[in-house]
Amino acid sequence: MKSYRKELWFNIPTRRAFVNITPNVEACLRESGIKEGLVLCNAMHITASVFINDNESGLHQDFEKWLEQLAPEKPHSQYAHNGSEDNADAHLKRSIMGREVVAAVTAGRLDFGPWEQIFYGEFDGKRLKRVLVKIIGE
Amino acid sequence: MKSYRKELWFNIPTRRAFVNITPNVEACLRESGIKEGLVLCNAMHITASVFINDNESGLHQDFEKWLEQLAPEKPHSQYAHNGSEDNADAHLKRSIMGREVVAAVTAGRLDFGPWEQIFYGEFDGKRLKRVLVKIIGE
Amino acid sequence: MKSYRKELWFNIPTRRAFVNITPNVEACLRESGIKEGLVLCNAMHITASVFINDNESGLHQDFEKWLEQLAPEKPHSQYAHNGSEDNADAHLKRSIMGREVVAAVTAGRLDFGPWEQIFYGEFDGKRLKRVLVKIIGE
Repeated sequence: MKSYRKELWFNIPTRRAFVNITPNVEACLRESGIKEGLVLCNAMHITASVFINDNESGLHQDFEKWLEQLAPEKPHSQYAHNGSEDNADAHLKRSIMGREVVAAVTAGRLDFGPWEQIFYGEFDGKRLKRVLVKIIGE
Repeated sequence: MKSYRKELWFNIPTRRAFVNITPNVEACLRESGIKEGLVLCNAMHITASVFINDNESGLHQDFEKWLEQLAPEKPHSQYAHNGSEDNADAHLKRSIMGREVVAAVTAGRLDFGPWEQIFYGEFDGKRLKRVLVKIIGE
Repeated sequence: MKSYRKELWFNIPTRRAFVNITPNVEACLRESGIKEGLVLCNAMHITASVFINDNESGLHQDFEKWLEQLAPEKPHSQYAHNGSEDNADAHLKRSIMGREVVAAVTAGRLDFGPWEQIFYGEFDGKRLKRVLVKIIGE
């Protein structure tokens, strides 16, 4: 069994954003030389997300609006977590969108359906944060 | 390390439905011959879900009603994604229910608790769609 | 490839609670002797969750309040599942928080960001329930 590990670093200039990291994960997969196995891709921070969905800007606007309805950022005082923090909503938003993705590796490629793309979801940006890519297989 | 791959195909006659695919995944596991490892089971489409929950029709009605409250289908015009599409709600519903399941394989069987069953959740049906089953192990 | 399996048992005295199980999973990892691979940690019951987030009591209060808003326990009669049961809300809450976590194992340790901790989320307690820890790798 082979294993491969890489961190992807982000410093998003806004509080919230979605970034397509599919090319980064594909580059990791090529670098790993692994042909059959699983790739785990997870946010290493608890106010961010890695998820698979559509690379369509209208949908990303819908996600932003919807997550703000389900877990509004403001008023900050509505959350017990926000004594010395202001990011409780980011913890909740990331719970909806998920921490991680596990994808199949087949014949050296991400074994994806036609529209699957991997996104980094930032919900508390303006700081350096990381995504872990771990691949195991042969 | 052994690996196994199969696609399960669905053409659901309604827009939304839940289908118990546990027997299909168990058949894949037997076919694979893998005794110890992990099975990944994921929707290959971004308006569908694979999740584990209870095989109880009342609960499935509750899921349908609840998802419609959290991410209503209509009016279609409420979503930016719905310019040429009408399925933005399906992308949101699938985010709640999850894209994938990873389950343990122990002694050649799905290592499940007493009520765990795997479901395909369709949120934009009436077309051919696929689920990927990938198993790695020995 | 090596594989390791252990069940963690819980009997939570309240209906709902969050329990930090990171030390338990770390103990499993040491016992397994696995240095590189993946660890799967999942609830074996469908009214409970395993998730990764912050070990901060204010945030846990926020989760409790937020999940009650998204999927209220009462009135029990609002759910079709609650004919002979009263735990439909627990199935919904667990869908938000997730069934499972997959984490990387690197150099014999959980490959985590600075604040990542694994929690067992109980949504229908006062009974014996289990979490499965499955580790594969070398």
